Amino acid sequence: MKIYGDLKSGNCYKLKLLCHLLQLEHEWVHVDILREETRTPGFLILNPNAKVPLLELNDGRTLSESNAILNYLASGSALLPQDNFTLAKVLQWQFFEQYSHEPYIAVARFIACYLGLPEERRAEYHAKQPGGHRALQVMEQQLQQTEYLVGDQLSIADLSLYAYTHVAPEGGFELTNYPAIRAWLSRVEATPGYCAMPCES
Amino acid sequence: MKIYGDLKSGNCYKLKLLCHLLQLEHEWVHVDILREETRTPGFLILNPNAKVPLLELNDGRTLSESNAILNYLASGSALLPQDNFTLAKVLQWQFFEQYSHEPYIAVARFIACYLGLPEERRAEYHAKQPGGHRALQVMEQQLQQTEYLVGDQLSIADLSLYAYTHVAPEGGFELTNYPAIRAWLSRVEATPGYCAMPCES
Ligand SMILES: N[C@@H](CCC(=O)N[C@@H](CS)C(=O)NCC(=O)O)C(=O)O
Ligand SMILES: N[C@@H](CCC(=O)N[C@@H](CS)C(=O)NCC(=O)O)C(=O)O
Repeated sequence: MKIYGDLKSGNCYKLKLLCHLLQLEHEWVHVDILREETRTPGFLILNPNAKVPLLELNDGRTLSESNAILNYLASGSALLPQDNFTLAKVLQWQFFEQYSHEPYIAVARFIACYLGLPEERRAEYHAKQPGGHRALQVMEQQLQQTEYLVGDQLSIADLSLYAYTHVAPEGGFELTNYPAIRAWLSRVEATPGYCAMPCES
Repeated sequence: MKIYGDLKSGNCYKLKLLCHLLQLEHEWVHVDILREETRTPGFLILNPNAKVPLLELNDGRTLSESNAILNYLASGSALLPQDNFTLAKVLQWQFFEQYSHEPYIAVARFIACYLGLPEERRAEYHAKQPGGHRALQVMEQQLQQTEYLVGDQLSIADLSLYAYTHVAPEGGFELTNYPAIRAWLSRVEATPGYCAMPCES
């Protein structure tokens, strides 16, 4: 299988991390988001929504959306709970990530780190701060109660939220006041097979 | 089980529609979003992320995020495919909905319909238009090829995207140029058990 992605992006790094943890063989095809390589005619055939990451199976079938790909690739592994309700909790955190976390934290980081905080996006950058902190507070509250986001076991919910949370300071979100989040980041990083971002190979 | 929601919201209506289609008994608890009833101390205990819809099971366990709840409640039914890859495709469309569709179409509709397009949000309303049309084009392209978003069977992916697509004109997105979307809307509406928005009971 092939994964199209740019390791600058946390959404793509999620998949790299999963592949490392589960030792899944794959070919990584670099698609440069800053050069708008997701908008070439060739890439649009693969993903009409013009985004990475994208999974391409050996038979040519494709799957987009980082969290959908995580669910597919983790299926049958210890990172995906079997029980229906626990599985729904994993999805809850993944939808939370895409709706209440990523649009604030990842976008602020992108503006600051990759665009260099240009004048015309400074207001947007500042407007992202309260929403990002609200998301971190929701995570902190959960992680005060459980070791991982869903109970006491690492799951793909943790991978989804680890991706941008551990680089949140790059978007202006200091983690000083989130002790449970910091302990959880260390726990994820101590998992056998963990790889840092960006990780080659 | 109880569902906390406001039927003005498409995210909540998704669940009402699922419950009608599958004839799931439930108690609907109205939470008024315009009156900020999601931010009361009592509601924050149920959902620290301060959003509806929220599912509460009889044993007190709670689940948030409309699409996670759809997956949980549809489990075992014909609306949720069994095959791993097909299931991942359903998730792909649901994550697409939350990331590339709802933040444009639902937000523009909210500003126009519920806030009455106030002066201070007019620029935001207009800025939402291109993104909403991009999402509709992605759907149109799929629905030119298949009857439903995932193959030839109605699934919860369709319910997720039906919720705000059928009211997209209220957000300024005319559907005239999307014939495949319009045919699909009619197909969903012809499903036995369908209920319109807002549907009481
Ligand atoms: N909801 C998508 C978001 C993916 C996304 O936003 N990808 C960005 C990089 S982080 C991208 O491809 N941007 C290129 C573009 O929009 O042209 C997912 O989780 O996969
Ligand atoms: N990602 C969430 C979004 C839910 C959401 O945004 N709910 C809105 C109503 S559509 C809400 O509760 N707003 C109240 C508030 O933010 O105070 C889901 O799919 O359930």
